[in-house]
Amino acid sequence: MKKILLFGAGRSTSALINYLQTNKEKENWQLTIAEKFLESIDEKLIDAQTELISLDIQDEVKRKDLVAKSDIVISMLPARMHIDIVKDCIQFRKSMVTASYVSDELKALEKEIEESGIIILNEVGVDPGIDHISAKKLIDELINSGAEIEEFETFTGGLVAPQSDNNPWGYKFTWNPRNVVVAGQGGAVKFIQEGTYKYIPYHKLFRRTEIIEVEKYGKFEGIANRDSLKYRSIYGLENIKTMYRGTLRRPGFCRAWDAFVQLGATDDSFIIENSKHLTYREFINLFLPYNPNDSVELKLRHYLNLAQDEVELFDKLKWLDIFEEIPVNLDRATPAQILQSILERKWKLEPEDRDMIVMWHRFAYKLNGINKEIHSSMVIEGDENHTAMSKTVGLPVGISTKLILNQVIRQKGIWIPIHPDIYLPLYSELEEHGINFIEKEIN
Amino acid sequence: MKKILLFGAGRSTSALINYLQTNKEKENWQLTIAEKFLESIDEKLIDAQTELISLDIQDEVKRKDLVAKSDIVISMLPARMHIDIVKDCIQFRKSMVTASYVSDELKALEKEIEESGIIILNEVGVDPGIDHISAKKLIDELINSGAEIEEFETFTGGLVAPQSDNNPWGYKFTWNPRNVVVAGQGGAVKFIQEGTYKYIPYHKLFRRTEIIEVEKYGKFEGIANRDSLKYRSIYGLENIKTMYRGTLRRPGFCRAWDAFVQLGATDDSFIIENSKHLTYREFINLFLPYNPNDSVELKLRHYLNLAQDEVELFDKLKWLDIFEEIPVNLDRATPAQILQSILERKWKLEPEDRDMIVMWHRFAYKLNGINKEIHSSMVIEGDENHTAMSKTVGLPVGISTKLILNQVIRQKGIWIPIHPDIYLPLYSELEEHGINFIEKEIN
Repeated sequence: MKKILLFGAGRSTSALINYLQTNKEKENWQLTIAEKFLESIDEKLIDAQTELISLDIQDEVKRKDLVAKSDIVISMLPARMHIDIVKDCIQFRKSMVTASYVSDELKALEKEIEESGIIILNEVGVDPGIDHISAKKLIDELINSGAEIEEFETFTGGLVAPQSDNNPWGYKFTWNPRNVVVAGQGGAVKFIQEGTYKYIPYHKLFRRTEIIEVEKYGKFEGIANRDSLKYRSIYGLENIKTMYRGTLRRPGFCRAWDAFVQLGATDDSFIIENSKHLTYREFINLFLPYNPNDSVELKLRHYLNLAQDEVELFDKLKWLDIFEEIPVNLDRATPAQILQSILERKWKLEPEDRDMIVMWHRFAYKLNGINKEIHSSMVIEGDENHTAMSKTVGLPVGISTKLILNQVIRQKGIWIPIHPDIYLPLYSELEEHGINFIEKEIN
Repeated sequence: MKKILLFGAGRSTSALINYLQTNKEKENWQLTIAEKFLESIDEKLIDAQTELISLDIQDEVKRKDLVAKSDIVISMLPARMHIDIVKDCIQFRKSMVTASYVSDELKALEKEIEESGIIILNEVGVDPGIDHISAKKLIDELINSGAEIEEFETFTGGLVAPQSDNNPWGYKFTWNPRNVVVAGQGGAVKFIQEGTYKYIPYHKLFRRTEIIEVEKYGKFEGIANRDSLKYRSIYGLENIKTMYRGTLRRPGFCRAWDAFVQLGATDDSFIIENSKHLTYREFINLFLPYNPNDSVELKLRHYLNLAQDEVELFDKLKWLDIFEEIPVNLDRATPAQILQSILERKWKLEPEDRDMIVMWHRFAYKLNGINKEIHSSMVIEGDENHTAMSKTVGLPVGISTKLILNQVIRQKGIWIPIHPDIYLPLYSELEEHGINFIEKEIN
């Protein structure tokens, strides 16, 4: 019997837990879940053979004991908590699976990880994860067929499913709200387009969108992620002319979001004096020029250079109640924290709402002297059992765990799913679970 | 005989050295100058009795020996180099004068400084320095006369004198170019206006200017400095309704400068790939959307939303040669470094050019129930011997040194010139040297 130790059973782990429990008899697994907030786990989700343990990750003795007794470890904790577990894994020679990005701290342990003969498999969620698996598979197929890949664009979005898309933003929080509010901050966006490097500062990012279309789901807009350039070497596409990774929203979202960026309302770097006693309207006015004779509405229109007849954008802002005298009621808060609380009131995902993950790749390549293009897309909607986020993050993590235990994945060291030994079996089992890409040749 | 030890003889210290040498016989001083780059000192400036010593500030033994043998220390080195000297001053119980801001590192030594019975007098240059001296003097006079100060705005600019103002920007580098390029970065601007807090993000800062007028010198535009709020407690004006500190430029400068901010060309946080082989034109194009069929000129106009007939702003940009195929020739450079090198070619202060320091205060107050307002301004131009920057930084530093040696200033601990015992004698001797404020009551 193989012992699987799962750290963290937060809200997007239901599909993972389900996968591990469904396969436990056939695979002869024993699942142990270590979680700080046991009371937050949905009891219906956990079957009788699964062991639930209350654990504060800071409790080193208990944590090490759990790792020592396991055969493989999965961490679904926030990324910053992984590193202590990785050190335990090195000490007790246990492999580990996470959906998080490879951190610099992790890279610093590369030699120890290799020497202990384990694999730390990262970035096997959805983004990063399914993006790598699906893109690298097609890239390698194209290269093996003799194609020269000239352009690669890829976008992913965590959105609300069409049936629940009932607000003017086409958006609700289906994932960590804070990440949405501060998205794009922390440095210029970098990519390469047709051989030309391009850099976009944060304050222009949300006006530099690209429209893409996904069959049956219509139009989306893409904004660039922070650093697309580093994926040239990760995907072995050093000489590619266009490399662009981005995030999807429904059209019109970004232009309206830009209003908050222009105001400075997404800033998370300073505390607002007197924040506790502000109203939403006063919060917006903090960022507008002083003039007691003008309305906040008109000052904002003027600030954003919005003509009287630009109704759609302005209605999105109004719908959030930002012009109302509603108390903020947050002490010593940053602008980003106040904005998040305003948004959470209106962008809340209701129990009956369904989320949706959309992924879209574009490959332009030359084969036998002919220019060709493939678009590849995947849409997963949530259902009554699992959110789309939970399925697309949990399934590849669960499958990876199985593949390592069964020695299908035999790599050692720090990996992400860009080797055919890893992405091929993952891709094929994801397909069995309904996570499919539709490929379309464009001529 | 009193021994004065001056660390640093960089380009803005000529007026300070001249002051110390002019007064040395009357005051019975011996001046020692410790400088790393002795060859950069203008020999004509140094008289026979002044001792010149070659010193790398890292040379702890030699540095401590010099401090131990002195009666007072002046540091005109870059601010980050002060702290080691301060520690020596504590050890050997020597007072010290600098024109730099009080740093957190310095504050951490407050107890040791007080216990050793010395004064570390900071912020006695021009800005900070003469701004404190002149403003606090008037503030205390007003308060002592029974006035209630409601608003205080203060602006300073290091500019080019009218006789040398011969380019479309009305600006040349009269001080550290790097500080000009990255000015305003590192966090939102904060101030209070009519009792309302106001925050401006960096990308909007240069469009939120205020026009002021100085007699005989015409109009200037002011942009806010980073944090005006903290000066409420420094000046003892906790309940003031408006507190705004800013920097002066000639009108039109900020709007044109904003073009670089909007592009992201002032970003100093990342290295541009391939920077060595770029031209000025290609550098600008890095920040513009990809479109090989449009000119960089038109793309920039469109990006900045500039109509065809907005000639003045566009001419400023063109005059900098940013659309030319001139090689950048800087390896591994940030956008800010490249922009600086482009600007230095055109904003260079020629030997015959004269600089100018402009300072302007506005006080609004209530006296006996009547609303009153005073504007106070100072303009100093450079001459053939000393730049305006050198005079306005060096003279208050030199005078402070004399006042401490002569025990006119008897304060101990960390100080800036906001106590009447410090600012009154400083103000009066600055006046003798032609550094005068013109006060005007506005009705």
